[in-house]
Amino acid sequence: MTYCVAIAVAAGSVFVSDSRTHAGVDQISIYSKMHRFDAGPGRQFVMLSAGNLATAQSVVARMERDVEARGHLGLLSANSLEQAAEYIGRLSVEEQQKHRQAHADKSFFPEASFILGGEISGAAPGVLHIYAEGNFVRASQAMPYLQIGEIKYGRPLLDRIISWETPLDAALKCALVSMDSTLRNNATVGPPIEYLVLPAGTRSQGLYRLMQEDDEHLVELRRAWSDNLRIAFDALPGAPGLAGLIGPSAARITRLEVS
Amino acid sequence: MTYCVAIAVAAGSVFVSDSRTHAGVDQISIYSKMHRFDAGPGRQFVMLSAGNLATAQSVVARMERDVEARGHLGLLSANSLEQAAEYIGRLSVEEQQKHRQAHADKSFFPEASFILGGEISGAAPGVLHIYAEGNFVRASQAMPYLQIGEIKYGRPLLDRIISWETPLDAALKCALVSMDSTLRNNATVGPPIEYLVLPAGTRSQGLYRLMQEDDEHLVELRRAWSDNLRIAFDALPGAPGLAGLIGPSAARITRLEVS
Repeated sequence: MTYCVAIAVAAGSVFVSDSRTHAGVDQISIYSKMHRFDAGPGRQFVMLSAGNLATAQSVVARMERDVEARGHLGLLSANSLEQAAEYIGRLSVEEQQKHRQAHADKSFFPEASFILGGEISGAAPGVLHIYAEGNFVRASQAMPYLQIGEIKYGRPLLDRIISWETPLDAALKCALVSMDSTLRNNATVGPPIEYLVLPAGTRSQGLYRLMQEDDEHLVELRRAWSDNLRIAFDALPGAPGLAGLIGPSAARITRLEVS
Repeated sequence: MTYCVAIAVAAGSVFVSDSRTHAGVDQISIYSKMHRFDAGPGRQFVMLSAGNLATAQSVVARMERDVEARGHLGLLSANSLEQAAEYIGRLSVEEQQKHRQAHADKSFFPEASFILGGEISGAAPGVLHIYAEGNFVRASQAMPYLQIGEIKYGRPLLDRIISWETPLDAALKCALVSMDSTLRNNATVGPPIEYLVLPAGTRSQGLYRLMQEDDEHLVELRRAWSDNLRIAFDALPGAPGLAGLIGPSAARITRLEVS
């Protein structure tokens, strides 16, 4: 399994991915699912992948070959993220069909899906979800995040915190906590964790980091979230009518303060 | 879809269920998924159901008929929750097979699963998950909660909060917040919400409540959790290295206090 999340807010975009792949529970490996493409000045792309690893690797390899060939194909010539997504979707469907035809076994699933982000001079930045069928959708101001892979455990926090106005550092923090919740609940999602932050309009390479399981920031974030969540939970009001049944519960507290 | 959760801690057990059923997006109804059985003095049972509604209703109807018949079958004669679960599992498999055979359509899914709890004088209380195949497992001290239906959205909080030592009021609070997170993220899980709290060893009927969407406690709990979660999130430490890219972020705060 995989968990990748991308958030596009007014201030820029954030990408976070895990690195665990598995073919059965006793065949677990580490592969990066974050792919960055250097497509010349003013053109940067980042892609996150989920699903069949062979399909994802073939798609990435073909994208890189097309960039190296300096031809009119692919990321070098796309005038928008949508054009790039259409190209990637076509490669993905081709790779899936190639192996689907070669394999009659119904338990073989060549499907892969992608999140594409980045910036092309003059075109709107953003993040797009490319489905296994090759079609795609763009995140919107009303729905500023996209997820692929094991999406459910990490979604409730994104749902409550992320809006178009969320600052970039808060968006990163939220994506990392969302990742941590998923790591805790699905053993097939695992470290190292990679993240990339791309501020809007700066055309910098952004901030990229790879965090191992014992990364100081990741450990501190995990501990702080665990503590803070417990405090936030303890301060919730209790249900009415229980006191008569189980005795008085702790004093009701509904206000938290930061010291 | 459905979301039901049961928690068995040292102090007793808690059951929470939603009430939405659907056969397609335009055929949505309200049915209780919490079934209580009066099986005489010192014997109380509660069952939560998920999956095919017709199967669940048939199983519940047969359980009630067997209780009314006052025979040697079913809840009246079971000496343990496991014996009761075996009986329910058998009814469930019978009902599923009856309709599976009558229906060659592969898109027909008669499967249903159940959570069974309660107390029989002299036998250990607890909660059991009865699978669609009729087999079952009991929650343990190491894993004191069980979920059926749409389980993932509501799991991270249970995972962090619930232990064998959790007081009964905190277990209820946690189950209700877990339900609320699921309601927010899956449109096929919906109110009214029912809950039942059974303190261990008291043989009382426990505390039962049904909460409509605008229930005062539910609304207050939802608002308080939303506020507290935001405060808990804001107080998390930020990632290193971002300041140079996007300017200084808010002062780092890692301590929350309750006022």
